[in-house]
Amino acid sequence: MTGIRSAPPVLLRPRVDGSVPERLARSAAATDGIVLRTEDFAAWFARRRDAHPFRVERIPFDRLEGWSFHERTGDLVHRSGRFFTVEGLHVTVDEGRRGDWHQPIIRQAEVGILGILAKEFHGVLHLLMQAKMEPGNVNLLQLSPTVQATRSNYTKVHRGADVKYLDYFTRPGRGRVLADVLQSEHGAWFLHKSNRNMIVEALDDVTVAPDFCWLTLGQIGLLLHQDNVVNMDARTVLACAPVAAVPPSVSPVPSVPLVSPEPAGGPGDAFGLFTRALRRSREPGTGALHSDTELLSWFTAERSRQDVAVRRVPLRELPGWHRAPDVVERADGRGFRVVAVSVAAASREVSAWTQPLIEPNGMGVMAFAVRRIDGVLHVLVHARVEGGYLDTVELAPTVQYVPGEFVAAAGEEPAGRPPFLDLILAAAPDRVRYEAVHSEEGGRFLAAQSRYLLVEFGDEDGDDDGPVPLQEPPGYRWATPGQLSSLVGHGHYLNVQARTLLACLNALAGAP
Amino acid sequence: MTGIRSAPPVLLRPRVDGSVPERLARSAAATDGIVLRTEDFAAWFARRRDAHPFRVERIPFDRLEGWSFHERTGDLVHRSGRFFTVEGLHVTVDEGRRGDWHQPIIRQAEVGILGILAKEFHGVLHLLMQAKMEPGNVNLLQLSPTVQATRSNYTKVHRGADVKYLDYFTRPGRGRVLADVLQSEHGAWFLHKSNRNMIVEALDDVTVAPDFCWLTLGQIGLLLHQDNVVNMDARTVLACAPVAAVPPSVSPVPSVPLVSPEPAGGPGDAFGLFTRALRRSREPGTGALHSDTELLSWFTAERSRQDVAVRRVPLRELPGWHRAPDVVERADGRGFRVVAVSVAAASREVSAWTQPLIEPNGMGVMAFAVRRIDGVLHVLVHARVEGGYLDTVELAPTVQYVPGEFVAAAGEEPAGRPPFLDLILAAAPDRVRYEAVHSEEGGRFLAAQSRYLLVEFGDEDGDDDGPVPLQEPPGYRWATPGQLSSLVGHGHYLNVQARTLLACLNALAGAP
Repeated sequence: MTGIRSAPPVLLRPRVDGSVPERLARSAAATDGIVLRTEDFAAWFARRRDAHPFRVERIPFDRLEGWSFHERTGDLVHRSGRFFTVEGLHVTVDEGRRGDWHQPIIRQAEVGILGILAKEFHGVLHLLMQAKMEPGNVNLLQLSPTVQATRSNYTKVHRGADVKYLDYFTRPGRGRVLADVLQSEHGAWFLHKSNRNMIVEALDDVTVAPDFCWLTLGQIGLLLHQDNVVNMDARTVLACAPVAAVPPSVSPVPSVPLVSPEPAGGPGDAFGLFTRALRRSREPGTGALHSDTELLSWFTAERSRQDVAVRRVPLRELPGWHRAPDVVERADGRGFRVVAVSVAAASREVSAWTQPLIEPNGMGVMAFAVRRIDGVLHVLVHARVEGGYLDTVELAPTVQYVPGEFVAAAGEEPAGRPPFLDLILAAAPDRVRYEAVHSEEGGRFLAAQSRYLLVEFGDEDGDDDGPVPLQEPPGYRWATPGQLSSLVGHGHYLNVQARTLLACLNALAGAP
Repeated sequence: MTGIRSAPPVLLRPRVDGSVPERLARSAAATDGIVLRTEDFAAWFARRRDAHPFRVERIPFDRLEGWSFHERTGDLVHRSGRFFTVEGLHVTVDEGRRGDWHQPIIRQAEVGILGILAKEFHGVLHLLMQAKMEPGNVNLLQLSPTVQATRSNYTKVHRGADVKYLDYFTRPGRGRVLADVLQSEHGAWFLHKSNRNMIVEALDDVTVAPDFCWLTLGQIGLLLHQDNVVNMDARTVLACAPVAAVPPSVSPVPSVPLVSPEPAGGPGDAFGLFTRALRRSREPGTGALHSDTELLSWFTAERSRQDVAVRRVPLRELPGWHRAPDVVERADGRGFRVVAVSVAAASREVSAWTQPLIEPNGMGVMAFAVRRIDGVLHVLVHARVEGGYLDTVELAPTVQYVPGEFVAAAGEEPAGRPPFLDLILAAAPDRVRYEAVHSEEGGRFLAAQSRYLLVEFGDEDGDDDGPVPLQEPPGYRWATPGQLSSLVGHGHYLNVQARTLLACLNALAGAP
């Protein structure tokens, strides 16, 4: 074939850089870092917390500065016309028990950037993470991506400080792009919102600003076992990292012992089988219960058969909802609330502000049921309708449950408890492979916590099929983490909750 | 790694069936078929035409049966509430010369199925194509997919006959799925419309109904060189075929001579270099000017930087448009028209009907500028905004031009002629690698013809860069046909015009 070339191949580059997944896997296998030792993280994080005294208080709506309810529509808007608005939405679905409902929804048409800067130290990729305060965060300070910027941020609508490291993500060629994909945000709370999820490798020297630190993917994996430390924006970006399978014996930092995260109550042996099956799913040539084409065909059919119609309606006219001086909520108390807070802090781009937030009704449960099938890990994904998705359904965890939340699920049970919820909640501790509480985005949601779980079911050869069978109910499919990593390279396949669990699976890929 | 398996791998299958692209490529290389010889196609097609006498006439709107202008909105609607409606749209864009415009648009929320049934005869995949009449088609009868069904079709809203072969595409497991993806339709004429594009291989015997025939991909490739024979629905499905590179010497029908389609005026040698570079782009391990990650990152940036807001408005109130007894059109004559026709035919599911159609203002031009770079074919794609896309931009041909059409292109020139149009129109005949006139979907568009072209520029090593340089202007990128085939496995990357050209590239892959 070389005969047809009229010139040496000097202009072309490989379509796929095979070294990137391997380098990310090596970073996942490194549970200690070159720059900040894992044992020193807590002290560093505490210092960042101390360095930024701040105060978040609930306030009535009439103390919001720049925000008001629009005279005609009753929508909650900012006088600049930017940031976001809280409007009403009427959702009609063709499937499921509840045919239609009304709800408030956040509209923020612009695309933000969630970007993590990466750099190799001693042959191991480290990620530049930020200790960042968000008013809705549990613990207020959480570990965030390097850059977390709405377009308003970087076009200076709020006249704040520059966003640090932004040019790595907005100037093509400033670094080497490892991942860059538009991903959806919460479809239950946002209308058609998506953000750019980016990982960019710096090829020059990077000066580390005070609230920033370099961590390996393995170190972040350890922190993902702690409650409310790694924020949602970091988790969704980490989900997009194209991680390969690397055996735990390949430790790129030989002087540092690999620390196994202790699974919640599980015996080491079961956890070892789980992580080996997880790595197997990412090895080249490993099969799956359904081929990629079959999985995509099922997804296409799910997306096609759903008729979801949404209509924006004035917040003022939202049936069943009423507005009090400090809250917009349902008369029956179900669902979430719209509230307002004031914030005083030094570490944000501006030093003090007020803003609305969405406050859910209680702790959510987000869980993948997982199985080893022929030694390869599979997770049970659910094709889920939410009113705010750009296109009818996205793939969600097996269980995605927020008390009182409006759902349209073909398999929803009469009591409003989704399939598999009680099974997950009742799982024996030795079945739980991962468990931690995480917050959703603290810039829009107030104390929106969920318990994230990976729970293993079944025996490997399918003989004892158990309560989570190989033969899936309608709307559900077994897929491998390797298949999810392929899908998350494109937008609107995996929802944000599934991406948090995929980020955990990515980070666990390095565990022994 | 086998030690971790507790059971033989009986449940798993390969994620990717590597034989499918190869089998499709063999079909593309077969320019004659086992069932219907290429030389007999014209006679068969003429017989189908004779078998179905029909008549399409323009009528005034008040002769439409079941259709009327809604009393309040002026929208053109069907009394069943199904099929489609013609409404008004206000489009606002942040980029480009024209900041906003009003236009009529077709709204048809439901997802249709465009499906081609495949089956192997003597080791070669053949595709079951249908001679189907559509009222807007030039020549009326064109070659269509096996199934071309709106949801109204198969739920029998119009009380017509059964859709033949439909269960292969709606019943999982009825055949082997080779491709299944939601793809957008014309964003300038449809609001958020997408169809399922499917190729399914039959594993059982198939009875061939009178209007149907089995053709190889190579035979269809020959027909794609004729004007107005292969309809749009067939072309978009063929674009989704995951074709591999197979050298022309591998002819799966050795008794049949391979017929080279004569390029329009080009010498055989240049055409041979072109097809070899085309095949090279699909070989495993072949590089590209931009890696897949870089290409996706550029696309993500293009999609993110565009602010496109659309608002549905009543057709009655559309500024600049007026309604006459037989047409809705712009007062200045620019853009397209909404008209009505009556149809009498025996070969449709129902025997006579009336319906509205969109009629564009003239012949369009859809062209890829192509270059051989280091012996690998590249095409210049354009990130194009259209008001009806689900998400701001999709990848379009280098030139996509319909006279008077509303466009929002960052690079649009003052005269309203897009970049590269005059270059394409002025190209010397020996630069033209493909040229044919095709119609857009005849069920919605009346005589919507475009000249589709592949025109080669530049020399291979980039020394003489010429008018279509290696360094792309903003909004454009060089991509290989192999990269486009990867992208078209997912929805909303390639627009329908680019998919027609990709279908031609797929079919040409078998040419010697």
